[in-house]
Amino acid sequence: MANHLYKNDLPDGLDLGPIVAIDCETMGLNPHRDRLCVIQMSGGDGDAHIVQVEKGQTSAPNLCAMLENPDVLKLFHFGRFDIAAMYNAFGALTAPVYCTKIASRLVRTYTDRHGLKNLTQELIGVDISKQQQMSDWGAETLTAAQLDYAASDVLHLHQLREELNKRLAREGRTEMAQACFDFLPMRAKLDLAGWPETDIFAHS
Amino acid sequence: MANHLYKNDLPDGLDLGPIVAIDCETMGLNPHRDRLCVIQMSGGDGDAHIVQVEKGQTSAPNLCAMLENPDVLKLFHFGRFDIAAMYNAFGALTAPVYCTKIASRLVRTYTDRHGLKNLTQELIGVDISKQQQMSDWGAETLTAAQLDYAASDVLHLHQLREELNKRLAREGRTEMAQACFDFLPMRAKLDLAGWPETDIFAHS
Ligand SMILES: Nc1ncnc2c1ncn2[C@@H]1O[C@H](COP(=O)(O)O)[C@@H](OP(=O)(O)O)[C@H]1O
Ligand SMILES: Nc1ncnc2c1ncn2[C@@H]1O[C@H](COP(=O)(O)O)[C@@H](OP(=O)(O)O)[C@H]1O
Repeated sequence: MANHLYKNDLPDGLDLGPIVAIDCETMGLNPHRDRLCVIQMSGGDGDAHIVQVEKGQTSAPNLCAMLENPDVLKLFHFGRFDIAAMYNAFGALTAPVYCTKIASRLVRTYTDRHGLKNLTQELIGVDISKQQQMSDWGAETLTAAQLDYAASDVLHLHQLREELNKRLAREGRTEMAQACFDFLPMRAKLDLAGWPETDIFAHS
Repeated sequence: MANHLYKNDLPDGLDLGPIVAIDCETMGLNPHRDRLCVIQMSGGDGDAHIVQVEKGQTSAPNLCAMLENPDVLKLFHFGRFDIAAMYNAFGALTAPVYCTKIASRLVRTYTDRHGLKNLTQELIGVDISKQQQMSDWGAETLTAAQLDYAASDVLHLHQLREELNKRLAREGRTEMAQACFDFLPMRAKLDLAGWPETDIFAHS
């Protein structure tokens, strides 16, 4: 279990495998105002790869190749936000994707708590701290606490997916979940294009 | 311009062409309670084909073949509701589809009025009456006013689509619209499966 820290992009030749867990840290929730600061990734082996993004940076070729690679599944919790943040920063639309929050909504119908902390607690018995969630991710030097927090957000997503997939199959909702995942990149694009609060499918 | 009235299903051998406008009338807005009563269709030639559905009816083979035909585009205004109603009644999931309400949301950003009446008025200068919208569609014999109303809901959808497609292209939003249309059948399925009010893509 190690944290690998990089500036601007993933290093050349690093292959994180066929399923990559991803989470982003930004300056806030408005992608047009709040820049992307950190992208943390994991191949599911316990290691976290953390890329710091500079203010004004508009490209990250190795990262984007992975995001757009049709043979690599990108695993998120509430991917809508991260997909939009990275599309906004680099122009690369992430696909295909899996979102643990959507999967949770489709199987954990006995609760309305679909936060990452709730999921890891219930599904794999791990307590993650959310203490650094609101911190200055734009700082040039990130603290050890920040790095550990960033890592903790991606280290369990593979295991969560396994468990959620079992339950989706059990309840006969795998196909429904897949259709939602397929639409998610476009839902993120709609956020940036100007429909962030609109349920585009609603009657009114 | 004629209304053709049928019982239970479309007649054998009737081909409505590659783009079929469809609208349904039901006993109300709750598909688990309110049965499907009427399905009106048009090939875009000014004729309306109106199928009356019996209480308890669970199949309509000719209709369903068309609904599921991948080479026939099904054109709706707020298709989410109609797709769910027909899936619930007959088990056939309509695809591929086009929805004029969604297209309108994506191009008529200067208004929040995306009702069918607003669309026909603005885009093709036609006034349709909504007077029979709330009426007893479960009646054995439909009134002439009901039949004309039912027809009016499908006769203009082809023209609306033409105009909306021009504007989607002009604004560079064709691909976004297509992604929404592709997800729509599954959105309808989610309604029936128990997520009618949930924006499945929302944070909370
Ligand atoms: N409207 C919103 N409210 C709260 N969190 C939001 C949000 N929009 C996006 N997010 C992101 O969703 C993640 C939290 O999801 P959840 O509450 O389900 O655990 C947060 O990421 P981080 O955990 O990386 O900070 C946060 O940045
Ligand atoms: N929550 C809702 N409120 C109003 N209309 C709804 C609705 N859910 C579905 N509909 C359907 O959407 C259609 C109206 O759309 P709009 O308001 O955009 O013109 C109506 O069909 P009909 O026009 O066939 O009766 C109505 O049955």
